Amino acid sequence: MQHDLTLAANALRMLAIDAVQQANSGHPGMPMGMADLAAVLWSRHLRHNPADPTWPSRDRFVLSNGHGSMLLYGLLHLSGYDLPIEELKAFRQLHSKTPGHPEVGLTPGVETTTGPLGQGLANAVGMALAEQLLASEFNTPEHRVVDHRTFVFCGDGCLMEGISHEACSLAGTWGLGKLVVIYDDNGISIDGHVEGWFNDDTPARFEAYGWRVIRDVDGHDFAAIAAALDTATQDVGKPTLICARTVIGKGSPNKAGGHDVHGAPLGAAEVAAVREALNWPHAPFVVPDTARAPLDARARGAAAQREWEAVVAGLPAERAAEFKRRLRGELPADFATRSAADLAATVAKAETIASRKASQNSINRLAPALPELLGGSADLAPSNLTQWTGCRSVEKAAAGGNYLHYGVREFAMVAIQTGIALHGGFRPFAGTFLMFSEYARNGIRMAALMRSNPIYVFTHDSIGLGEDGPTHQPVEQLATLRLVPNLDVWRPGDAVETLVAWQTAVAHRHTPTCLVLSRQNLPHQERDMETVDAIKRGGYVLVREDKTRPLQLVLIATGSELDLAVKAQAELAGQGVNARVVSLPSCHVFEQQDAAWKRAVLPPGVPRVAVEAGVTAGWRQYVGLEGAVVGIDTFGESAPAPALYAHFGITVQAVVDAALAVLR
Amino acid sequence: MQHDLTLAANALRMLAIDAVQQANSGHPGMPMGMADLAAVLWSRHLRHNPADPTWPSRDRFVLSNGHGSMLLYGLLHLSGYDLPIEELKAFRQLHSKTPGHPEVGLTPGVETTTGPLGQGLANAVGMALAEQLLASEFNTPEHRVVDHRTFVFCGDGCLMEGISHEACSLAGTWGLGKLVVIYDDNGISIDGHVEGWFNDDTPARFEAYGWRVIRDVDGHDFAAIAAALDTATQDVGKPTLICARTVIGKGSPNKAGGHDVHGAPLGAAEVAAVREALNWPHAPFVVPDTARAPLDARARGAAAQREWEAVVAGLPAERAAEFKRRLRGELPADFATRSAADLAATVAKAETIASRKASQNSINRLAPALPELLGGSADLAPSNLTQWTGCRSVEKAAAGGNYLHYGVREFAMVAIQTGIALHGGFRPFAGTFLMFSEYARNGIRMAALMRSNPIYVFTHDSIGLGEDGPTHQPVEQLATLRLVPNLDVWRPGDAVETLVAWQTAVAHRHTPTCLVLSRQNLPHQERDMETVDAIKRGGYVLVREDKTRPLQLVLIATGSELDLAVKAQAELAGQGVNARVVSLPSCHVFEQQDAAWKRAVLPPGVPRVAVEAGVTAGWRQYVGLEGAVVGIDTFGESAPAPALYAHFGITVQAVVDAALAVLR
Repeated sequence: MQHDLTLAANALRMLAIDAVQQANSGHPGMPMGMADLAAVLWSRHLRHNPADPTWPSRDRFVLSNGHGSMLLYGLLHLSGYDLPIEELKAFRQLHSKTPGHPEVGLTPGVETTTGPLGQGLANAVGMALAEQLLASEFNTPEHRVVDHRTFVFCGDGCLMEGISHEACSLAGTWGLGKLVVIYDDNGISIDGHVEGWFNDDTPARFEAYGWRVIRDVDGHDFAAIAAALDTATQDVGKPTLICARTVIGKGSPNKAGGHDVHGAPLGAAEVAAVREALNWPHAPFVVPDTARAPLDARARGAAAQREWEAVVAGLPAERAAEFKRRLRGELPADFATRSAADLAATVAKAETIASRKASQNSINRLAPALPELLGGSADLAPSNLTQWTGCRSVEKAAAGGNYLHYGVREFAMVAIQTGIALHGGFRPFAGTFLMFSEYARNGIRMAALMRSNPIYVFTHDSIGLGEDGPTHQPVEQLATLRLVPNLDVWRPGDAVETLVAWQTAVAHRHTPTCLVLSRQNLPHQERDMETVDAIKRGGYVLVREDKTRPLQLVLIATGSELDLAVKAQAELAGQGVNARVVSLPSCHVFEQQDAAWKRAVLPPGVPRVAVEAGVTAGWRQYVGLEGAVVGIDTFGESAPAPALYAHFGITVQAVVDAALAVLR
Repeated sequence: MQHDLTLAANALRMLAIDAVQQANSGHPGMPMGMADLAAVLWSRHLRHNPADPTWPSRDRFVLSNGHGSMLLYGLLHLSGYDLPIEELKAFRQLHSKTPGHPEVGLTPGVETTTGPLGQGLANAVGMALAEQLLASEFNTPEHRVVDHRTFVFCGDGCLMEGISHEACSLAGTWGLGKLVVIYDDNGISIDGHVEGWFNDDTPARFEAYGWRVIRDVDGHDFAAIAAALDTATQDVGKPTLICARTVIGKGSPNKAGGHDVHGAPLGAAEVAAVREALNWPHAPFVVPDTARAPLDARARGAAAQREWEAVVAGLPAERAAEFKRRLRGELPADFATRSAADLAATVAKAETIASRKASQNSINRLAPALPELLGGSADLAPSNLTQWTGCRSVEKAAAGGNYLHYGVREFAMVAIQTGIALHGGFRPFAGTFLMFSEYARNGIRMAALMRSNPIYVFTHDSIGLGEDGPTHQPVEQLATLRLVPNLDVWRPGDAVETLVAWQTAVAHRHTPTCLVLSRQNLPHQERDMETVDAIKRGGYVLVREDKTRPLQLVLIATGSELDLAVKAQAELAGQGVNARVVSLPSCHVFEQQDAAWKRAVLPPGVPRVAVEAGVTAGWRQYVGLEGAVVGIDTFGESAPAPALYAHFGITVQAVVDAALAVLR
C-alpha cells in the first residue's frame, strides 16, 4: 500500500512536470507538493464514480488553488475519468480539455472553475451547504438519498484573500460538518517566503470561526495524512481544516522549497533530475499499472453509485420524481401555465411600486411553485426585499431552511451561490445594493464563465436612492455589468417588467441574471397583451408612434427613466414630433432576438435618444454618434432623489430638449 | 468631568437624532451607541487642531462605519471645526457639507470617505503605515516631526467584510503600534441580531493576526473606556483592537438595542421620549456651552500644532524643505527637466519589450527623483515587475522601506494605498493582474471619488497573456474601468507610451491612474518628436495618411493592438486606401483636450475602425454605428497567445477586412 501510494503520488508529480515542460507553461510546484495528500485522499476517502461525473451523491473535490491544475488532471486521468493521456499531452493548448486552470463543464470531474484565489473555497462552502439543505429536505431515516462530503485543496493565497474570511466564517456558523479543507502550508508564495506578508496564526483564526482544526500534519507522511482524514470525515457539526506542512516542488532536487518552482517549467535538466531522484524510469506520459491501481476508482465508484440508486429507488414515486426534477434543474411541468396566470394578475393590478417591491411580489408568486428557490441577502433583507411569505431562515444547515442571512459578505455570497448552483437541487438568489455588486464583481464574472445560473437582486440602482450619497449611488455599475459576457442584466421599468425579468431569470439554465431594481416607486405602464408578451424579448416598443405619419425619433429608456421617456414622448407629440418609446430592460436578451425583431424595434436610420440615470458611453452602441444620451457621467450627490434628478438634469424636459437637438 | 462628558455624549446623540429626523433619512442607532466612546476619545486622547484640518501631525480619526456620519459631524461641530450648526441642519441635503456618508475634501476634519463597509478600516491601516514609514524617514532622535496615532471606529459590518481580514492581517505583520481600532460590538446588524450570521470569536481572530486585543470594555462606562484607550495608546509594536460592548440606539427608551433604530428616523414621538429620558430640555440643534466644553479642541489643538511647528523648524533647512514638499505632494523642481531627458532616452532606445517591462524601466527612471514612491504588489512582484533597483521591502513598518508585499490581498492593497495617499508624504503604486483589479473594484472607485491619486499597475491585460486561460484573461475589464468617473486609464502601445503614461500618472494630483500593461512584447513605434510630444494628450495621430489625398479611414488602437493597426494601415495603403492610425492610450486624457485637438485627431465624417483585444461595445462612442470594431465579446481560452489572436480573429487581416467592409 505504502509502496503503491508512493508510485501513485510520483505518477502525479511526473505527469505534472512533464505536461508543464511540454507546454512550456504552468505551475509544477503545487502538484509536486500536494501529490501525497492527493494520493491518500483520492485512493482512500473520496467517493466518486469516474464513469458518471454527474452522479449527484458523489463527493465534491474542489481545487481552490487552481493553478495546480495538472494535479487535478493527473488525478482524473489516473482515476479513470474520460480524460485520455492525449489530453494531458495537450495541456494548455487550444481546445484541449486541460486548460491552464480547471474549468467546470469542459473537463469531466472538474467541479468548479478555479484560479482566482479564494473563490473555489467559497464555492465549496456553497456545495457543502447545498448538500446539508438538500439532505434536510429529502432524506428520511430509511433513505439517505443525499449524503456526500466536500473536500477542498487550498493554499496560502486562498487564505490571504478576504473571501476566505467571509466564506469560512459562514461555514462555521452554518456548522458544515461534511466540509473538509486541506491547507497546503508550504510557506511559499510568488513573492517568496510568506513570513514577510502572511503571519496569521491560521489554526487559531479558523478556531475563531468555530472550525475543528487538525494541526501540524506532515503532508508527505501517508499514515499521518490518512489519520487526519479519518478524523476529518467524522461529522461533529463543524467544518474541518487540516493544516498540512508540505514542501513546494517536493521531488525536485534543486528547486524544492523555493518560489522558482511555483509557476514556471522546471527545465529539461531538472525534470531529468526529478526522474532520477524519484527513481522513475518511464518516458513522459507513461504510467505503469502499479502506479495507477491505487487511484483507479472505476469499480468502487460504480458500486457506490449502484448502491445509492437502490436507495433512491426506495423513495415514494412522487417524492423520487420531485427529487430527480430538482437535481436536473428543470422547472415544474405547470410552470408556464402558472407564469402566464401570474403575469395576467400583475398586469391587472397595475401597481405603482418600487421595482424592489415588485421583485418581492414576484418572489411571492414564484416561491410556492418553486421549492428549489434558496434566497438570501448580504444583511440587507429589509432593503433588498428578498424575503417572502413563509420563507425560513437557515441557522444550522443540517436543520434546513430556504433563506440565507449571508451577513455583510457580498463576495462570499456570490461565490457560495455559484457553489450551490453547481451542486444542484436549488435555484439560489441573493441581494445587495447594486453598488456593492462591486465587492463581488469577479464572483459574478466567474458564475457567467461557468455557465451557472444564480440570480442577483441588486436594488438601490441609481441616484434615485437619494440621501445616502455618492458612495451608494451607482452610476457606472449597470453599464459595466452589461459588458460581462454571458450575464443577463435586467433593469425593469415597472412591476410588470419586473415579473417578466424574474420569470426569465428563473428559466435561464446557463446564464446568471442581475435584476437591477429601484428603491423608489415606479409608475405602472399601460400595455396591450401583445406588448406585455413582447417584454420577454428584452426590448420592445412600449409607446407606438402615430402610424399615419413617418416615425421621426426613437426614445430608448430603462427602469426608473422609462416613465420620463413616456412623458417626453407625449410632450414631443404635442410639439408635432412623432416619436416612439422603446423599453430596453435587457440588452442581453434583446441582442439575442432575430434581426427582424431588432430592426422593427429600432428602425435603422431613425434618430435615437436614450435616457438612463447612469453613464452615457454604453448607450452609443444604440444611438450612435448622431443620437443623444441623457445620463450622468460624474459621481452622484447626497440629497433627496427628486432634487438629484433635477440637479443632474435627468428630466422629461432634458429628454425633450435632447430630442429636439437631435432633430435639428 | 463625568457630568460634562455625559452632557457632551448626549449632545452628540441629540444632534444625530434631530438631524436624522429633520432630513427624514439617516442612521441614528450607531451615533447613539458610540457617543460615549466618541466623547472620551475626542475629549481626552485625540490630538487635533480644528483650526487647521490639514495639520500633518494630527491624529487621524476614521469612521469606518460611515453610515453613522452624524456622530462625526456632531464631533467636528462641537470640537470647533468650520462646520456651523446650519450645516448640521442641512444634513443629507444638496450641496451641504453634511452628506449621508462622510466625504473627504468636502467637510473639514473628515479624513476619508466611508460608507462601503470595511474600506475605512483599510484606509486607516494605510494611514498608520504611512505615519510609521514617514517617521522612519524623517524623524531624528531630536526631531520627532512625524508622530501621530490613527483611531478607527468600526462595526460588525466592517468586520464581516473580507477586506477587514486582508487589512488587519497586514497591520499585524507590519506591527502598526499606533493604530487603535474601536469595535462597536452591539450585536445588531440590518437583518437583526447578528448571532444568526456572525459568530466569530473576534478577539481570538485578531490575536491570530498579531494584534493586542482589549476585551469586554463597557462602551458606556467613561472610566472603562478611558482606561482602555490609555492602554491602547501605549505603543507595543502591535495594533490594538478595543472590543466595546454597546447598545445600539442607547438613550432611546423604546428602540434601543433593536435593529429598527439602525437606519431610519426615530419618529417625532420617540425623539421626544429620548429628550425626556436624557433630560435634554434644549430645542433641536441647541447645545449648551457646558456640553460643548469637553470636546472643544481649539485651544489645545493650536498649542499642539505650534509645538510641532517648532520641532519642524529645528530640522536642517534642506531637510525641512524636502519634508514640506513631500507633505504638500508636489513634484521636485527638476522633475520636468528630468522627465524630458528620460523621454528622449527612451525614444532613443527604441526597445521592443513588454509594456510591463517598460513600466519597470519607467519606475527605475522615476524612482531616483521621487523618494516618495512607495511601490508594491499583491504577491505578483516578479510578474507585475513593480520592484526597482534599490527598492527596499517593508517588513516592520517602524523600520522603514519603500516596497510593500501586500500578499494576495488586492482589495486591501487598493484601500491601503488610498489611505497612504490621503495621509500624505508618499505616492503609492501597486500591481496585480488586470483581471484581479475586480477583487478591488470598489476600492478603485472610492479612490476616484475621493480625488485621491494612487497608481495601479495592472499587467497581463488581455488574451495576450496566453495559457493561463479565461479565468485570467481580461476581456471587459479595460472597458469597465474606463467608465469610472475621475479615473485615468492608460493602455500604452510601446515603451515610449508607457513612460509617458507613468509621467502623467505621477503628475496627477486628484485622479488615480490605471496603467494597463501587456505580458507579451510590443514593438517600438517610430515617431518624430512632435508626435512623441502628442502622446501626453491621450490620443494622437501615430501614422499619418498621405496628405496629398483625402483621408478615407481612421484606424484607432491601443496597447498591444497598436501594431496591428500600423500594419493594417500599410496593407491598406498598398490597396490604395488612404488611412491614418490614431493611438488612443488614454480616453480620459484625450476627452479633456480641446475640441480642436479632438477634431484634428478624429475628423468628423471620416469612417473609423477600432481594434482592441477586449469587448467592442465601448468603442461605439468613437466609431459610431457605421464604423467597425475588431475585438472579442466572449470569454477567452487557454492557449499560447499567438494561437488565441488567430482564433479570436484579432489580426492585421481582420482589421483590413473590417476597414474594407466599412468603406464598401
